Amino acid sequence: MNSSPKYSTFTSEFKVRPDDIDMFNHVHNSTYFDYVLAARYEQMELHYKMPMEEFLKQGYGWVVRTAFVDYKRALGLGDTFTVETGIETINSKGCRVKFSIKISKTGKIACDGWFDYVMINTSNGKSVKVSDEMIQKYSV
Amino acid sequence: MNSSPKYSTFTSEFKVRPDDIDMFNHVHNSTYFDYVLAARYEQMELHYKMPMEEFLKQGYGWVVRTAFVDYKRALGLGDTFTVETGIETINSKGCRVKFSIKISKTGKIACDGWFDYVMINTSNGKSVKVSDEMIQKYSV
Amino acid sequence: MNSSPKYSTFTSEFKVRPDDIDMFNHVHNSTYFDYVLAARYEQMELHYKMPMEEFLKQGYGWVVRTAFVDYKRALGLGDTFTVETGIETINSKGCRVKFSIKISKTGKIACDGWFDYVMINTSNGKSVKVSDEMIQKYSV
Amino acid sequence: MNSSPKYSTFTSEFKVRPDDIDMFNHVHNSTYFDYVLAARYEQMELHYKMPMEEFLKQGYGWVVRTAFVDYKRALGLGDTFTVETGIETINSKGCRVKFSIKISKTGKIACDGWFDYVMINTSNGKSVKVSDEMIQKYSV
Repeated sequence: MNSSPKYSTFTSEFKVRPDDIDMFNHVHNSTYFDYVLAARYEQMELHYKMPMEEFLKQGYGWVVRTAFVDYKRALGLGDTFTVETGIETINSKGCRVKFSIKISKTGKIACDGWFDYVMINTSNGKSVKVSDEMIQKYSV
Repeated sequence: MNSSPKYSTFTSEFKVRPDDIDMFNHVHNSTYFDYVLAARYEQMELHYKMPMEEFLKQGYGWVVRTAFVDYKRALGLGDTFTVETGIETINSKGCRVKFSIKISKTGKIACDGWFDYVMINTSNGKSVKVSDEMIQKYSV
Repeated sequence: MNSSPKYSTFTSEFKVRPDDIDMFNHVHNSTYFDYVLAARYEQMELHYKMPMEEFLKQGYGWVVRTAFVDYKRALGLGDTFTVETGIETINSKGCRVKFSIKISKTGKIACDGWFDYVMINTSNGKSVKVSDEMIQKYSV
Repeated sequence: MNSSPKYSTFTSEFKVRPDDIDMFNHVHNSTYFDYVLAARYEQMELHYKMPMEEFLKQGYGWVVRTAFVDYKRALGLGDTFTVETGIETINSKGCRVKFSIKISKTGKIACDGWFDYVMINTSNGKSVKVSDEMIQKYSV
């Protein structure tokens, strides 16, 4: 996790929802995936000017191909947190997005890691090439 | 993902629940985490003779420290699947569990990867040493 | 909740998944909805011979219009339970399904209630008339 | 749904999270329960000056006893919505909370209904009497 994203990073802020809490009284581990997803969707809309809804309308979607998450400390009930993400690499085959989730009140990292995304054709679920135009839009 | 688990592997079979399906009409990516969790709980009870409930009663819990998932093909509505897991390494600091989720009707892999677990004290959330007795129970 | 379903009732058996447990160490209240959904899907396939996948292929889906749930006692980690459902009324506008979730080990009711379902056209989300053929298939 | 709450109503605003969307491309029906829960927690903290964390520390929790939901129109990906809730009745046995979820961009109701809550002792899950002090705090 040493290299920093080549491209811009963006930050979204969210709050833990009560239904995210599991039997250990902290945010359920798989839910952090969904926090990164929420951040990416928001950032695609606000910063890349190409919201997921636009991809879906064109018959495309982004799905996770590989994921790595390093959990450091848990978020709890009522916590506010930020999700910073940035593209590390992007090409016709897909992109790698690094992320870091920080607990707002302490500034400490809850977890970080990366996701490799590929683009799919939503009608048949098969992966498709990311077009040059899309690569350019995301290379900010 | 070349080395195989040193210890026994166990297999559980489950069925996709309708609420697991997301907007892409396949199982939501974070849900595979929960399938591995369900398999581990079942296998702790049936094969390691030390169910999670036992840990919880003693004031302990296992939580994920690091996770890696390689998604190969999606599970869909109505699919039955198996989750094979096995401990690769275990010591006083925790254990690494490898897993492989297979689509029952085709025998093909939906995703595989590994999870590093640490044991925590559920009253304060801090990690604790895995005792020799526990290591022995899990070294089958 | 006094009148019993006019039509056949069917029973499915499931097990609580660890990710269903919330901060109160029992099954999260909204999750019982998903248990009823899972039972209906299984029963549509096994007993009504018209699985949801068939509806979806024809461009239709069933969605909840009104729901009533009476919680009596909570399901916990590791519990197995049954979901008994039966159609109370069905006509061209939709159907009312009564349900009862029982804890297997005690035979006691976890919750019961009913759901009113309407059929929708999945391409635009609008409700459509349930055909006579479908009503007949479901009037068993 | 004609009578209005006797006590104050409060409004929280949230945004649909991508993982809330189900196979019908709208918010999954059981998720609206979680939206009401999120609103209540926020409002307990901001308006009743007694956050759930406070109840939990004292060994108490609020759980749903009965629920009624009337779905009118679905929320979709990217939608922002408000959850207005208000106590209709409260006594030593519990309280009834009415709610109404509105789609922000249209002002139309997504769903409304009510929840009956009882207070439980979190150590054994049994219901307990709501104290006069608590009733007073909530009778605003």
